[in-house]
Amino acid sequence: MIIQLRSSITEQHQHQVLQAITGIGYKPKRVTTQFGNYIVCIGNKAFDIRTIGSLEGVQDIHYVSDEYQLVSSKWKVGKTSIDLGDGVVIGGGHFQAMAGPCSIESEEQVRGIVRHLKHHGVRIMRGGVFKPRSSPYAFRGMGLEGLRMFSHLCREHGIKLITEVMEPAQIAPMYDYVDVYQVGARNSQNFNLLDELGKVDKPVMIKRGISGTIEELLYSAEYVFAGGNERLLLCERGIRTYEKASRNTFDINAVPILKEKTHLPVIVDPSHAIGIREFVEPVALAGVMAGADGILIEIHEKPEEAASDGAQTLNFEESARIFAKIRAVTALRKQWERA
Amino acid sequence: MIIQLRSSITEQHQHQVLQAITGIGYKPKRVTTQFGNYIVCIGNKAFDIRTIGSLEGVQDIHYVSDEYQLVSSKWKVGKTSIDLGDGVVIGGGHFQAMAGPCSIESEEQVRGIVRHLKHHGVRIMRGGVFKPRSSPYAFRGMGLEGLRMFSHLCREHGIKLITEVMEPAQIAPMYDYVDVYQVGARNSQNFNLLDELGKVDKPVMIKRGISGTIEELLYSAEYVFAGGNERLLLCERGIRTYEKASRNTFDINAVPILKEKTHLPVIVDPSHAIGIREFVEPVALAGVMAGADGILIEIHEKPEEAASDGAQTLNFEESARIFAKIRAVTALRKQWERA
Amino acid sequence: MIIQLRSSITEQHQHQVLQAITGIGYKPKRVTTQFGNYIVCIGNKAFDIRTIGSLEGVQDIHYVSDEYQLVSSKWKVGKTSIDLGDGVVIGGGHFQAMAGPCSIESEEQVRGIVRHLKHHGVRIMRGGVFKPRSSPYAFRGMGLEGLRMFSHLCREHGIKLITEVMEPAQIAPMYDYVDVYQVGARNSQNFNLLDELGKVDKPVMIKRGISGTIEELLYSAEYVFAGGNERLLLCERGIRTYEKASRNTFDINAVPILKEKTHLPVIVDPSHAIGIREFVEPVALAGVMAGADGILIEIHEKPEEAASDGAQTLNFEESARIFAKIRAVTALRKQWERA
Amino acid sequence: MIIQLRSSITEQHQHQVLQAITGIGYKPKRVTTQFGNYIVCIGNKAFDIRTIGSLEGVQDIHYVSDEYQLVSSKWKVGKTSIDLGDGVVIGGGHFQAMAGPCSIESEEQVRGIVRHLKHHGVRIMRGGVFKPRSSPYAFRGMGLEGLRMFSHLCREHGIKLITEVMEPAQIAPMYDYVDVYQVGARNSQNFNLLDELGKVDKPVMIKRGISGTIEELLYSAEYVFAGGNERLLLCERGIRTYEKASRNTFDINAVPILKEKTHLPVIVDPSHAIGIREFVEPVALAGVMAGADGILIEIHEKPEEAASDGAQTLNFEESARIFAKIRAVTALRKQWERA
Repeated sequence: MIIQLRSSITEQHQHQVLQAITGIGYKPKRVTTQFGNYIVCIGNKAFDIRTIGSLEGVQDIHYVSDEYQLVSSKWKVGKTSIDLGDGVVIGGGHFQAMAGPCSIESEEQVRGIVRHLKHHGVRIMRGGVFKPRSSPYAFRGMGLEGLRMFSHLCREHGIKLITEVMEPAQIAPMYDYVDVYQVGARNSQNFNLLDELGKVDKPVMIKRGISGTIEELLYSAEYVFAGGNERLLLCERGIRTYEKASRNTFDINAVPILKEKTHLPVIVDPSHAIGIREFVEPVALAGVMAGADGILIEIHEKPEEAASDGAQTLNFEESARIFAKIRAVTALRKQWERA
Repeated sequence: MIIQLRSSITEQHQHQVLQAITGIGYKPKRVTTQFGNYIVCIGNKAFDIRTIGSLEGVQDIHYVSDEYQLVSSKWKVGKTSIDLGDGVVIGGGHFQAMAGPCSIESEEQVRGIVRHLKHHGVRIMRGGVFKPRSSPYAFRGMGLEGLRMFSHLCREHGIKLITEVMEPAQIAPMYDYVDVYQVGARNSQNFNLLDELGKVDKPVMIKRGISGTIEELLYSAEYVFAGGNERLLLCERGIRTYEKASRNTFDINAVPILKEKTHLPVIVDPSHAIGIREFVEPVALAGVMAGADGILIEIHEKPEEAASDGAQTLNFEESARIFAKIRAVTALRKQWERA
Repeated sequence: MIIQLRSSITEQHQHQVLQAITGIGYKPKRVTTQFGNYIVCIGNKAFDIRTIGSLEGVQDIHYVSDEYQLVSSKWKVGKTSIDLGDGVVIGGGHFQAMAGPCSIESEEQVRGIVRHLKHHGVRIMRGGVFKPRSSPYAFRGMGLEGLRMFSHLCREHGIKLITEVMEPAQIAPMYDYVDVYQVGARNSQNFNLLDELGKVDKPVMIKRGISGTIEELLYSAEYVFAGGNERLLLCERGIRTYEKASRNTFDINAVPILKEKTHLPVIVDPSHAIGIREFVEPVALAGVMAGADGILIEIHEKPEEAASDGAQTLNFEESARIFAKIRAVTALRKQWERA
Repeated sequence: MIIQLRSSITEQHQHQVLQAITGIGYKPKRVTTQFGNYIVCIGNKAFDIRTIGSLEGVQDIHYVSDEYQLVSSKWKVGKTSIDLGDGVVIGGGHFQAMAGPCSIESEEQVRGIVRHLKHHGVRIMRGGVFKPRSSPYAFRGMGLEGLRMFSHLCREHGIKLITEVMEPAQIAPMYDYVDVYQVGARNSQNFNLLDELGKVDKPVMIKRGISGTIEELLYSAEYVFAGGNERLLLCERGIRTYEKASRNTFDINAVPILKEKTHLPVIVDPSHAIGIREFVEPVALAGVMAGADGILIEIHEKPEEAASDGAQTLNFEESARIFAKIRAVTALRKQWERA
């Protein structure tokens, strides 16, 4: 159960509401975000909803049957959209492509990609500066210094940036330079990291765990929301199965299921979801057709020279073609929505 | 290695070719299909290809690095298309929707669906008369008698039919009534059934096993082809994974991967692949967008009364909408191909 | 619900029972096996059990909450044991090792293994004559002729034999030569084959499907039992997962779970479950420790020369050591049971 | 390639070795642990091993074909054993049971379990104070304060303790109170945490990821070792598969595979691996039989009242029986080893 409080509620009235909740046998948790003031109530006793709904300072009260609450579409009318400023909005009818290399490697590399994105009307660049790697001996990214350069070049050209954060201690130093924090698949259930990201006033995109369920992804988002940050994006990036003909199995079913279960925007990452360069295009378009609000694609001026993930990275020509086709597919979706 | 023989080859020359193959250390298997006369050669010794290519009666010789041979795209230029007659062609640029109930239940039911399909320009009806069921106590279908009625009504209206065959003994009695034999997911590696279907001159659609690999599906097709029947369709219908939010996990990656590995048409079955009625449309369209040559959808006049699979079955209104949208998506694909 | 009928029941009384069942809204299915006369009733209405229990000719009536019925441990007191004759009993406290090659290859091969088994007190030999193979070009077994030779040599030395049956048409010709029919993993849901095996009066061992659930395995057994054959064994042989360090993932959890859910004996097949020769011993012993009633091991005089599955096949020395250790483990289990 | 340096090596000679490594085209990484001074060299060029082996200060040089190096059994003769002091040793022939509740709940609870463990000769207690939970609203453990109490009671009675660490910032405050840091399944690839644990001089047990591969587990251990900490334990705790009859699928194959691939001790956690109280015993014993060096079991005086994981937790009577049986199984293993 979610209780939305009026912004004008007094401390005394809040206290009364909390007491009333405890009185009916529920456990209250106060959540204050950028946009609202909530009490999430855990329990499942029957009671007369008016005993709480009529209290001073209570704006709305929602019964949510899912165990995750704040991210559930059962209480929030309408879809959440994330506004990154300068007209870059994701969700709620706004589609965004995000593209860039697996790893940020050099100023020249970033400049080239920024130019390419601008030329094709793409507004968000992805790129890793802290890289989670299975082996301790692999390249682990340019770090904070790389991020500063990356951020500088993006801002110069009006491009927003998304990059991965790997631990709580990185959140603060990264703050001035990122537009969206990304939580990677391996950190999808790093609950301490999620808790800390709840305290930040910047959007967070959470990738589904390597073998995470759709429900676990929603719970991970609930962590950040319950921590105080409503500006969340969810990302389907393929799951681990027995099939080894592709890097992962793109769970395209997750797109409509997530769109129905939550009000948050849903992003697809076809590059990781199939992991084979020549097949990124068809599954990317399939993901958009299935209803995604955004897409994340790995591109590089020379994929064969990329520091990581070259095998799934598109070159400029390939990505230009995909950007154009995505536009045709989203136009078709729009046309159906208007019909 | 595949050796294509000229249709005019004499017995004596065939004998010479077989001897030459054995001589270079390969094991030959003769394959005669509706369309050709092949020798599949198993082995991997190095040799001078001209020693065989120059023999009398040899038309072409193809080195295929995959372990499956005849279904591989490495030897056959161009895509295979399956012509069911009356202008109904699948593959090679021709897209076909196939729709119908999980189980054939009554004459009235079939009549209603045939009418609906005709009205919307769909040329192939699916419907089960032999039903594989986990429990021995569940409804197992109307059997041969149901098939006769089903076939009669379809032919009356120029509709082709596809239905599942479950064992070798059913092949002959079904022959006069089916246009396409379907091999179900549970029989995907029923090798005796596949062997026998190789001897029939009617198209066969093989569904991927419940946790079958893409490679196993190709091998299953190789069985039928090597048995003598080239008219094959492959069907992605979702795989079994840990995720239980949907009935199966639609492995959409399989569509472009299969399209690249084989010359056979690739069909998608979104009804089984997600198993939830309200989400069939988005994943169906995604499957078409990813490059499928055809689609299989479960529909019923009253899904809530269906003898089986009601939870994933669309009603007439829903399916009409999907047929129209599929047309828009295939039109977009055509437009890109021409560009 | 299962109704056990007295063997002396008259046709008229049977008719009354069937009417009574239909009257309370259940669907009856009559099952006659080697050992009993049952009516399985499908439905879940509440009713006074005495209305049926008091009818003439009814011996016992059991309410079974599982959807599978006859194989459930909820109605049958005590474990089923399968008596192959000559003192070879599996289940109900009797443990049996079964060992032999993947494929029967020659008379000499069979003779050698029979001698080895006799020497080590193993009473059942396994060996395939019909081999399910992914590729149509692989060795498919010696067939019926091989089976005759195999059977002749086993009987000469008092060894029982188990071998795979692949299709209904093989059942009759194999009948005189087998002691246990094996249904392979790929045929675990070949329902027509299961139906036909219900009509035979020889034991049947069903392997779990490649990605079959425990429940599906029980349903497959229910097919054979409901077809009329109670003499059933279930076999855990590893399942398909994302982990590729072993051929399959040995689901050892299945052993205690099956032992609790069904009265049928449970066999483990460590050779397929791990697929790596040097590790067969530890997981074989683990399977026995977990409570298996029998074990199936692939052995060969010269594993490196085996026609199939050599990589997971033990030689005579290795298998002798394993037979001895199994004895120590089963002795420990017996000791605990007596305590 | 791993180069072991003599402890007496001078700075100058170390410099020479590093130069020589770079000279032959390898990338050196210096690793200093509690026990040794290594250079791990990444690359795969052919070279004359004597050019390095003959350098001053080089003790040994090992070529390791695996991509993980320091944890590989290919360079280290003999198994690693972890000595926790007071005669409590794990690995290298020493078996240890570790038991305790999922969550530390109260002083009384800890006292009761400590007494129970002492009575049955168990030397290590497990218990969580920081609990990773899918839902942000679930109980998250008693925290540091709980750990202090837990540690105090254990030390009073000579019991060692193992507990989970969830983020780098917890390592230092926990240091004085733990004997073994546990990395949970969800943090198995939290590389920043692994890096930091490399800097600590206390043993670390890493659980396999929820769908982690055996190889990924070894890489995670490589992180800690390469960070400077050799005292490592690996834990198989079940993996996520399609089978839902148990909480996880106990990958018992992993036990012999890990024992062969690494010199580190291998622990099994049957409580999580099956997740059903009544079946913990058979799979626990199976795990020991398969070769585990230790076992982790969830126990509670009153499992039905446990704050978490009650469904898989054993009571004192059940755990006493299991401790006794484990002793019989390890005795049998010892007897075979001596033979």
